[in-house]
Amino acid sequence: MQAALDYLERNRDRFLKLLLEFLEIPSISAQRAYDEHTARAAAFIRARLDDAGFKTGLYHGDGLPTVYGSRIEGDVRPTLLLYGHYDVQPPDPLDLWDSPPFEPVRRDGILYGRGTCDDKGQLFMHLKAAEAYLKTRGDLPLNVKYIFEGEEESGSVNLPDFIESNTELLKADVVVISDTALFGSGVPSITYGLRGLAYVEVTLTGPDRDLHSGVYGGAIENPVNALAKIIAGLHDEDHRVTIDGFYDSVIPLSDDERATFASLPFDDQEWIEEVGVDTARTEKGYTVLEGTTARPTLDCNGIWGGYTEKGAKTVLPSQASAKISMRLVPDQTPEDITEKIRSHFEKHLPPTMKLTFTDLHGGYGALVDTNSPAMKAAAKAMEGVYGQKPFFVRTGGSIPIVAEFKKLLGLDTVLMGFGLDSDSIHSPNECFGLDRFHQGIQTIIRFMDIYKG
Amino acid sequence: MQAALDYLERNRDRFLKLLLEFLEIPSISAQRAYDEHTARAAAFIRARLDDAGFKTGLYHGDGLPTVYGSRIEGDVRPTLLLYGHYDVQPPDPLDLWDSPPFEPVRRDGILYGRGTCDDKGQLFMHLKAAEAYLKTRGDLPLNVKYIFEGEEESGSVNLPDFIESNTELLKADVVVISDTALFGSGVPSITYGLRGLAYVEVTLTGPDRDLHSGVYGGAIENPVNALAKIIAGLHDEDHRVTIDGFYDSVIPLSDDERATFASLPFDDQEWIEEVGVDTARTEKGYTVLEGTTARPTLDCNGIWGGYTEKGAKTVLPSQASAKISMRLVPDQTPEDITEKIRSHFEKHLPPTMKLTFTDLHGGYGALVDTNSPAMKAAAKAMEGVYGQKPFFVRTGGSIPIVAEFKKLLGLDTVLMGFGLDSDSIHSPNECFGLDRFHQGIQTIIRFMDIYKG
Repeated sequence: MQAALDYLERNRDRFLKLLLEFLEIPSISAQRAYDEHTARAAAFIRARLDDAGFKTGLYHGDGLPTVYGSRIEGDVRPTLLLYGHYDVQPPDPLDLWDSPPFEPVRRDGILYGRGTCDDKGQLFMHLKAAEAYLKTRGDLPLNVKYIFEGEEESGSVNLPDFIESNTELLKADVVVISDTALFGSGVPSITYGLRGLAYVEVTLTGPDRDLHSGVYGGAIENPVNALAKIIAGLHDEDHRVTIDGFYDSVIPLSDDERATFASLPFDDQEWIEEVGVDTARTEKGYTVLEGTTARPTLDCNGIWGGYTEKGAKTVLPSQASAKISMRLVPDQTPEDITEKIRSHFEKHLPPTMKLTFTDLHGGYGALVDTNSPAMKAAAKAMEGVYGQKPFFVRTGGSIPIVAEFKKLLGLDTVLMGFGLDSDSIHSPNECFGLDRFHQGIQTIIRFMDIYKG
Repeated sequence: MQAALDYLERNRDRFLKLLLEFLEIPSISAQRAYDEHTARAAAFIRARLDDAGFKTGLYHGDGLPTVYGSRIEGDVRPTLLLYGHYDVQPPDPLDLWDSPPFEPVRRDGILYGRGTCDDKGQLFMHLKAAEAYLKTRGDLPLNVKYIFEGEEESGSVNLPDFIESNTELLKADVVVISDTALFGSGVPSITYGLRGLAYVEVTLTGPDRDLHSGVYGGAIENPVNALAKIIAGLHDEDHRVTIDGFYDSVIPLSDDERATFASLPFDDQEWIEEVGVDTARTEKGYTVLEGTTARPTLDCNGIWGGYTEKGAKTVLPSQASAKISMRLVPDQTPEDITEKIRSHFEKHLPPTMKLTFTDLHGGYGALVDTNSPAMKAAAKAMEGVYGQKPFFVRTGGSIPIVAEFKKLLGLDTVLMGFGLDSDSIHSPNECFGLDRFHQGIQTIIRFMDIYKG
């Protein structure tokens, strides 16, 4: 292991140069005009695996290719399944970038460019960790399988099919993903919880056309007012969601977990200032951190109805609509929660209204056992690099693929990410600190050695 | 009087021909490209008054001209102030018209074209009633002053100034306006109540930018949910408005009035079917007719916030907005009610939100004494034409100029209109029944004779 770490130190500049080459490829999966580039990114990464002696394959399915690579060092060693994605978000709006998104540059130790953090830079750490072993001892400490997806930023629509069709190929002991953030700058952390999502759209229809509010107002229930009433009733005074059975499957936070949350270096006031609000508003009895990561929530993502242009138009609208999403925690399922909010709307619908209900999107949350050998190994690896034990943290966002790995392959995922919330992923001036890039490689080198047992 | 009525019968075709000429002028006040035509309509009507021996004037002010004409027959006679408007609504969408809007045609006894009912056709009835007297007896039964406005369809922005600057010129005993509808086809009615209007816009701002609902959801009050909650609280279970003091100045419906409402030929079920809803929703204790005409109401005219396009975007919006209007009844004032809803929002605003409140528009309601000599004369005139006593009715819409006449000149208004709700004013295929055009002239001839005393 020490030889591998030394190799990394000697090759920092060369690794960076190669990463720049990878980042220059505009692999924008959401835009068909870039398909050729996205395919080039897949070829680039496959070539690196070929060079390193991996057995590789390119899987096309219905969409952009998935790159597969494996090195099986022996049956008795554990097998890692490493997932990453080589596609990136569109760079718009271009005029807000300080330097062109696909001409990555280093400024003050930070690398700027689309994909530096999400996820080309983090994916690349794994390739370089493997290279460090292969160049210094000729093999890897354990078996490794890579899958690098090209459609993560456009919904991973084909990945579940790929996994389901290749369960034997993907057989492993644990999944590792480096596509999350550290808890804070210089604060090592491993994500063990993700929230799921249920996202619906509702439309209430009252009169069959827009009416004059003078002539009809006073005897017609207004769809905007009626929708507002149902939405208002979705939370109680304690800011708990009132949908029947909403909390039935929620795994409660244990005392240990809450103690851990409380020990994290997190300042509510700083957070409030950063968000630009006067006060936070959480479910009663929970902190900001618990509320945003470990408790289920309900938010309107959009609402519309009637006249929304300038000035005063005296319309009594025929319809009002809203998009409503719920962040879920284990063991809530999007299917169950979607049915429950549908029932809630049906139950509270006034007799004057018709309801149109659309299930738009769903994804499972995940909770990983922090005491598994892989999580312990990851924690020890991080401690070796950062000089302090990492925090186990939960994040409020969703990575639905984690639940797919569990469902389709029975595998837990170690979320070992080195981003920061300030890395502007999905935004202009995306960046990744080179210190974190190297700490990431060091951590992976250590993790492979520790986890092999 | 009989001679005047006979004259009308002999001249039906000639009157119609002249009306068609008037209707052919596209006097669209909202569109500057039509200003020349609108001025031509003013000149047309002034020429008719000149021909009839009226003393006339054209008042320009800051906008389109107001035509003035007067015939003072003697000091002892009462003076009518007749208000009408010679401008019309834009005709769009043109492709929905069965015949061109400014090429009026008669089909099955009904005249189709823009302005046939609102208000050129109704204004014209007054000119022809005067002509009938002047051609048969050489003078009018009473003093008459006309003001014909050219900006009613674009907000009458200059009319209050004109009235205020010309109180001596406009001195009269009563105002007459023919710009409303009969209660139903063949159902004579006089409008004695109009509702006022207070129209506001509110915006709630939470976080200073749109946030990711996964990362922040659970500790941020959502402006859409917060706005929905305030809106939901604007009505109670009895569908009464909950704003403090909202009903303080409302003149209650008298038992007599309610009996009159109950006696009107109005069928709730027919109304419900026409509107296309399953049930009506009125303030508890009031009928559909009372709710839509004689009680104050509150409606959201529009609402918007967050993501409103196709699909699922997990945004936690920074802002949510709504347009809210209240129809007022005497003696509610728009100023008072606007302040009260402002206070309501301020009082119920969660500490997490900032409020932007805009007063968009306001107008006074009106209630005219049905026992005044002018109203009695109007009722008797109608009875003479229709063979039955007219109903005194209230309408839910607003004609703010009625309150201006009261405020600036101290005058009540007799709303003697001959339209029908089915005349499609402001819509394609606007029309006016020729029977009603002639009944209108007959009524006015009778009214002048009866009211002169």
